[in-house]
Amino acid sequence: MAGNTFGEVFKITTFGESHGAAVGVIVDGVTPEVDLSEEYIQIQMNRRKPGQSAVTSPRKEYDIVHILSGVFEGKTTGTPLFVILHNHDMDPAAYSSIQHAFRPGHADFTYLKKYGIRDHRGSGRASGRETAGRVVGGAVARKLLERRGVQVLAYTKEIGGIACRLFEEQAIEKNAVRACDPTAAAEMTKKVEQLAAVGDSCGGIVECRIRGVIPGLGEPVFDKLDAELAKAMLSIGAVKGIEFGSGFSAASMLGSEHNDEMSSAGFLSNHSGGIIGGISTGQEIIFRVVVKPTSSISVPQKTINIRGEEQVIRTEGRHDPCICPRIVPVIEAMACLVLEDHYKRQTAMLG
Amino acid sequence: MAGNTFGEVFKITTFGESHGAAVGVIVDGVTPEVDLSEEYIQIQMNRRKPGQSAVTSPRKEYDIVHILSGVFEGKTTGTPLFVILHNHDMDPAAYSSIQHAFRPGHADFTYLKKYGIRDHRGSGRASGRETAGRVVGGAVARKLLERRGVQVLAYTKEIGGIACRLFEEQAIEKNAVRACDPTAAAEMTKKVEQLAAVGDSCGGIVECRIRGVIPGLGEPVFDKLDAELAKAMLSIGAVKGIEFGSGFSAASMLGSEHNDEMSSAGFLSNHSGGIIGGISTGQEIIFRVVVKPTSSISVPQKTINIRGEEQVIRTEGRHDPCICPRIVPVIEAMACLVLEDHYKRQTAMLG
Amino acid sequence: MAGNTFGEVFKITTFGESHGAAVGVIVDGVTPEVDLSEEYIQIQMNRRKPGQSAVTSPRKEYDIVHILSGVFEGKTTGTPLFVILHNHDMDPAAYSSIQHAFRPGHADFTYLKKYGIRDHRGSGRASGRETAGRVVGGAVARKLLERRGVQVLAYTKEIGGIACRLFEEQAIEKNAVRACDPTAAAEMTKKVEQLAAVGDSCGGIVECRIRGVIPGLGEPVFDKLDAELAKAMLSIGAVKGIEFGSGFSAASMLGSEHNDEMSSAGFLSNHSGGIIGGISTGQEIIFRVVVKPTSSISVPQKTINIRGEEQVIRTEGRHDPCICPRIVPVIEAMACLVLEDHYKRQTAMLG
Amino acid sequence: MAGNTFGEVFKITTFGESHGAAVGVIVDGVTPEVDLSEEYIQIQMNRRKPGQSAVTSPRKEYDIVHILSGVFEGKTTGTPLFVILHNHDMDPAAYSSIQHAFRPGHADFTYLKKYGIRDHRGSGRASGRETAGRVVGGAVARKLLERRGVQVLAYTKEIGGIACRLFEEQAIEKNAVRACDPTAAAEMTKKVEQLAAVGDSCGGIVECRIRGVIPGLGEPVFDKLDAELAKAMLSIGAVKGIEFGSGFSAASMLGSEHNDEMSSAGFLSNHSGGIIGGISTGQEIIFRVVVKPTSSISVPQKTINIRGEEQVIRTEGRHDPCICPRIVPVIEAMACLVLEDHYKRQTAMLG
Repeated sequence: MAGNTFGEVFKITTFGESHGAAVGVIVDGVTPEVDLSEEYIQIQMNRRKPGQSAVTSPRKEYDIVHILSGVFEGKTTGTPLFVILHNHDMDPAAYSSIQHAFRPGHADFTYLKKYGIRDHRGSGRASGRETAGRVVGGAVARKLLERRGVQVLAYTKEIGGIACRLFEEQAIEKNAVRACDPTAAAEMTKKVEQLAAVGDSCGGIVECRIRGVIPGLGEPVFDKLDAELAKAMLSIGAVKGIEFGSGFSAASMLGSEHNDEMSSAGFLSNHSGGIIGGISTGQEIIFRVVVKPTSSISVPQKTINIRGEEQVIRTEGRHDPCICPRIVPVIEAMACLVLEDHYKRQTAMLG
Repeated sequence: MAGNTFGEVFKITTFGESHGAAVGVIVDGVTPEVDLSEEYIQIQMNRRKPGQSAVTSPRKEYDIVHILSGVFEGKTTGTPLFVILHNHDMDPAAYSSIQHAFRPGHADFTYLKKYGIRDHRGSGRASGRETAGRVVGGAVARKLLERRGVQVLAYTKEIGGIACRLFEEQAIEKNAVRACDPTAAAEMTKKVEQLAAVGDSCGGIVECRIRGVIPGLGEPVFDKLDAELAKAMLSIGAVKGIEFGSGFSAASMLGSEHNDEMSSAGFLSNHSGGIIGGISTGQEIIFRVVVKPTSSISVPQKTINIRGEEQVIRTEGRHDPCICPRIVPVIEAMACLVLEDHYKRQTAMLG
Repeated sequence: MAGNTFGEVFKITTFGESHGAAVGVIVDGVTPEVDLSEEYIQIQMNRRKPGQSAVTSPRKEYDIVHILSGVFEGKTTGTPLFVILHNHDMDPAAYSSIQHAFRPGHADFTYLKKYGIRDHRGSGRASGRETAGRVVGGAVARKLLERRGVQVLAYTKEIGGIACRLFEEQAIEKNAVRACDPTAAAEMTKKVEQLAAVGDSCGGIVECRIRGVIPGLGEPVFDKLDAELAKAMLSIGAVKGIEFGSGFSAASMLGSEHNDEMSSAGFLSNHSGGIIGGISTGQEIIFRVVVKPTSSISVPQKTINIRGEEQVIRTEGRHDPCICPRIVPVIEAMACLVLEDHYKRQTAMLG
Repeated sequence: MAGNTFGEVFKITTFGESHGAAVGVIVDGVTPEVDLSEEYIQIQMNRRKPGQSAVTSPRKEYDIVHILSGVFEGKTTGTPLFVILHNHDMDPAAYSSIQHAFRPGHADFTYLKKYGIRDHRGSGRASGRETAGRVVGGAVARKLLERRGVQVLAYTKEIGGIACRLFEEQAIEKNAVRACDPTAAAEMTKKVEQLAAVGDSCGGIVECRIRGVIPGLGEPVFDKLDAELAKAMLSIGAVKGIEFGSGFSAASMLGSEHNDEMSSAGFLSNHSGGIIGGISTGQEIIFRVVVKPTSSISVPQKTINIRGEEQVIRTEGRHDPCICPRIVPVIEAMACLVLEDHYKRQTAMLG
């Protein structure tokens, strides 16, 4: 109810503020007797950590995965998996200037309005740091999905107006922006570096493809697979929209174009994005999310302080000029959580 | 878990198939001692019913609202409100041709894959008819939101490639497509009629504005206000995407453009769409959804039957060539449900 | 949240007041492709209906089961099953005297305090009539449990101080009080008739045995199988306590007596009642609930009216002098709901 | 779903095994801006810790409370409160003998049947150690209930056949068994010491009184206040039954005796235990739970090992010969959790 738990059967509950002592997660509903190590989870954690390249924040969080319960002699026990990530490299001094002023584009104002109090250090719970716990949960889900033959792959599709012209899967993890087109990736990187130099930021689009899902997954009516994926993605702070398959371009399509015809070999097209009526068709599930420009910029901006007085603010500290490359593993994690949870729901219904 | 309930505190559970005996809803968590009549709910039901104009299906469902519990002497009692809508004007013969074949763009195939069985008559639960129960629940939520000074308004923004150039609120309920621009509405209507004549359909975009929401509404981290609205909207069968505020155009904006600056008089822009960090800013909440072209068309299409044999199908029956005008009240209903539920959650936390 | 839904995967939501137009239930999470008929459910409904003998209320409710959705051509579809039971034989005049006064032992006072309003006709939602929807849901669960080889059997163990000395399973449905000892049953019946003659009532104890449950069912830590059964039973208005296995007598036992030893043939005793650590042992699950004397009596009692003025009240109307025989099928229904739900949860976790 | 979360609005999720690295809890739904310190929580933790007297286990767990998130500058922030309790003084050698054998009365057998794997060290999640996280959550709830004027008080009523003859509130925390009668307490202590000397254990009864609750608290129909309290209490491993007010003695009472009459000064008796129809009457809420004899005894017992071979076992290690005194703060904690959660639910409904 208070919003810190995600999932129905396979679920995560996260805790921790950006500049508190630690962040972490309880993963409940884990299948027992599955091999799971800290190293396996660490791989995904490393993909979201800052300081991977010139286009990401130089903050070092380390993010060393410690499993404190739920695994016994290398195997999951079915009881809650608990992972803690201690916070390091906190520089609260960098945040003292924002203690009393609302940073434009940040949740400073809304948190204070909601709770009447806020932990101003590094955005508290509204920080991207909170997603560390999600990535842990997502890694566990990914482990379980591997057994089902499901793969989840996200990548940058567009940054700062520069779009990928190719889909080259092998290129993704080899460029700093995690784009699926190496040439576009180089242009994007240059653009992001230029913006970083002037203290500005830019947005982008991340695409996600999910392969190997059985047909028949998803819970109509309200918990449709696309509805739950939409919720999962919009729960990521920087995401402002999502579209499946043909997405917004369906607005100007005819039914005779958009409907996916079938032959005995299967569907002849995938305008639906692999989900119809909230249930998977067995095709590739494909969606795109829009990522807003990072709010933290050092360009001077008009704002007010907590007494309502106008002032000009420059958000100091170490921030990503474009969050796309680091949001990619978070999107994958959330998609993994939704899928594993839906597989378990499907099993429950038939069981 | 099985997906037929929506909401946490204020919640609805719907039942009923398109061509079964009835559809309906249990609304639970209703504030007691509130004046509520069948007539009040009927107003919203009438807005979604078919046969309102040449651009909507001529099927007559009547949809007479019957409250069977939860209201005593004209006031809500706090106990479950139950409303039943008996089905009429069912023409199963029109559906016999689709008993064994999968209609392209429909959930026929996915339902069968999921459940191993399906009620083929008029799409069963996957039919737009299911949304009748949502509109009932939304009307009750709207009643409660009125007491909070919240207004929810949706309207067609674009149909078949024709976009509104104006926002004229008074025009919306006066044209057949519920568009916010009367001139564009006339063009849209003509376009839809032309498509209907050839048995085809088209998609569109519906925009929703919510006014009067307090700042501070929404539950971080996973149950963000925009995340829950996204889930609510994507749970509507024909919706394939959603964007808030600047939406997908944020992909090519700079942080210095997208961040909403503040003065002592409030925010200087609304690129965020009234929600930051999942919590309302107190500005107008604004989002758009894309509505796919109606799947039921009489243009011949390739498909297969349940034995996997290829065939050509023409979906007979009475269908809306563009669902936008009838989806408008459903979108408002879902938005009302999310908002009233979040107001109650906010009260619970502080209480 | 508002308390009208029970279960996690297999769940029911009930609606309706005692003297409203109807009561009923939505059963969600039903396994698809299972044979289910109105007749099958009717058998259980008939067991709880009034007027079965001299010891039950002569009110005729009929309670004809109507399935309006979720079953297609005799089989469940996996979509919500909806059953409505229209109310008949309502005699509101009999209740006019209690419109303004609180009946001792009834929920009149507490409902008014909670909601600020109440439907005084026949106790509204607090009436035993509400349990009709539970019995429908329980019958569906029983159908699914049959496929698992699970049997649920409840019966009267004690009424008005008269306890069964034998356990004769075949006798249960053959006597008016549903006791497991025909001799004791005759004594109980006589006692209840005597109390009825003077307008008084009495309490009793109902025992429930569940056979055929696999070892390993139940969700630690908070959703233990016994914890959920306890909640289910205490959610029945007249139930004031529950004990498993040796129950309250364990208070004066030693560990060396109470611990159930094991041999290679299995457990050597069943003091635990078939559940240890919240998980089934595979033995018979056995528990007892205490049923309070029916609150509605025509013996004069001191009370106050809604203005706080003292008065003497005699509750008129047709009431059961002892509710045990009619509560037996409700207890079975609730036990069935808990079990089927836990089987589905277990499947989900492993799946 | 997997059972490690309790509560709807104010809720806790616990993790950790008895002999793992740590146990702990996430408390979600905490009212913001409330003063809260580690010291306040530590007081309750100290009440449940072992080694308080000769009748409790000499194991030293320390249980130092560390708040790692959710409190900022001494006040709650409304975000998840996280508390970790590191495990110390673990003596795994003491448990090696039970690695392959099932201890009678323990959850060894059932956990293995459920999960196919178990952490045999000190019972894993089935250990009383798991309740540490509950006591943390309960302490936070107690803090919030203090603001509402609600007090929760539990105490030993009976141990090993010796019952309290008096209710002397001041005596409770002054005797080793937390009994409400100092004379009976001395007898109980002697009895427990005698049993400890021979390696046996005994059961008892704990009573709980809750004062200051408003009339009107509780959610009919399924989430009745007594139903939720019953679930909460039965979720404690050693509890095998619960009764409210007159409890099981109601089985032999008449309606004219059991019904609580009313005068203008209020209720004239409290046979209901302060709850009618699942809603509080505003009287003292009173219930009793039966606590089974501690399963861990060094008396030799027949059992089998994981290969099904018969053997004799003596459970070594340091155990409480009667768990009543240490279960008292756990019962209070669970009652506090239920009450604060129900207050918040009530607020939500009316809000």
